[in-house]
Amino acid sequence: MGEEGDRLLNLESVRKSLVRQEDTIIFSLIERSKYPINSRLYHQPSLLHFFINESEALQAKAGRYISPEENAFFPDSLPPPMLPPPKHKPVLHPSGASININEKIFDHYLKTLIPLVAAEGSDDGNYATTAASDLACLQALSRRIHFGKFVAEVKFRDSPQDYTPAILAKDKEGLMALLTFESVEEAIKKRVEKKAMVFGQDVEKPESGTYKVKPAVVSQLYGEWVIPLTKFVQVEYLLRRLD
Amino acid sequence: MGEEGDRLLNLESVRKSLVRQEDTIIFSLIERSKYPINSRLYHQPSLLHFFINESEALQAKAGRYISPEENAFFPDSLPPPMLPPPKHKPVLHPSGASININEKIFDHYLKTLIPLVAAEGSDDGNYATTAASDLACLQALSRRIHFGKFVAEVKFRDSPQDYTPAILAKDKEGLMALLTFESVEEAIKKRVEKKAMVFGQDVEKPESGTYKVKPAVVSQLYGEWVIPLTKFVQVEYLLRRLD
Repeated sequence: MGEEGDRLLNLESVRKSLVRQEDTIIFSLIERSKYPINSRLYHQPSLLHFFINESEALQAKAGRYISPEENAFFPDSLPPPMLPPPKHKPVLHPSGASININEKIFDHYLKTLIPLVAAEGSDDGNYATTAASDLACLQALSRRIHFGKFVAEVKFRDSPQDYTPAILAKDKEGLMALLTFESVEEAIKKRVEKKAMVFGQDVEKPESGTYKVKPAVVSQLYGEWVIPLTKFVQVEYLLRRLD
Repeated sequence: MGEEGDRLLNLESVRKSLVRQEDTIIFSLIERSKYPINSRLYHQPSLLHFFINESEALQAKAGRYISPEENAFFPDSLPPPMLPPPKHKPVLHPSGASININEKIFDHYLKTLIPLVAAEGSDDGNYATTAASDLACLQALSRRIHFGKFVAEVKFRDSPQDYTPAILAKDKEGLMALLTFESVEEAIKKRVEKKAMVFGQDVEKPESGTYKVKPAVVSQLYGEWVIPLTKFVQVEYLLRRLD
């Protein structure tokens, strides 16, 4: 995807990327689980907010947000890239490309996910490494959820006739129904649960059955949050697809 | 370790931390393997150099280098932390605490490790995400290798009489011999090779025997580089332990 542009945009390449992104998400959560909540990071004025804002400014200079797969948490006033952007035809429809639901993702991550993943104890003082770890989790989740734009674009291109009536009628529920395949969603939840077991096991004592991040938490994360938000992005994208 | 200070400094806690850090290193290498070499990052003036320098400045503000476990790649002129540092007694002996061999680590990472780990192809244009991934690998490796300071401190405290004669004689080879246990090193190499197989497998098709990073590369990385450099840090630390 990405730099190769249109040529590689098909359902199989999108699926492969989504499966690979599961590993990245689970690795990042396992890394976050090394630290306790460290709530001092999140007090106002929020050190995490500052850290992410500054990290994004730096990554913008290095060209991160040239890629249509990347969406900033604080997109206002990012500096321009230091290298000229590569020239390739945009893959996404322009009105949908700018969809950004990172505020929802940030909020949910902080309130729901951190308490389920963090180590016991309340504060180990490792704020900088915890913030870097939070950033890795947030970027991995944001990328996965906003990948819904590519999923929707591929599905629309494959059968525009299926989606056009609902788009013209602004029928969100109808679109959501067209995008929902329960058996596929169940398979994803099972797979990420298995991955959490494989990647989070104690390799020296696999029989101990202890995992760095609870596999049920990862399955729940996908079922209640990652999959629904990805579909939300898909619906929003499709609603703008004929603008 | 870290914030708990002296109380938890013993061979078992050090060993546990080293084993856990293997997971972090292997996760970070698997993530780096998503991208090709992207050599444009490393041309002069080096975008990676800029990226790491600026990232470290930001992480220093968030307090990263307060921790004796963290060593910057560009330690000169780092800004002070924004939060007051926690007050606890230093664990390491002051003259050894400042040992920093990140230049060696950086050089070896760039020249030897990236070509062994990077995806095929020469350039996908994802410089920012590749740089962030390089930073994660470098920090994980640097932390592991400089952990030799804690290993040496624990070993010295456990039996100062074994090390003192060689320290006073500035006998590097004698110290290296005292610190070398071939069976332990072989066990580490086997364990990290296994972890690379477990964490880098195709979870949907484990029978395929394909791995995201070659397990032999991780074993080689430890055998030829991580373990020798950790011992180098230990020797340097011990040489200053009686200053």
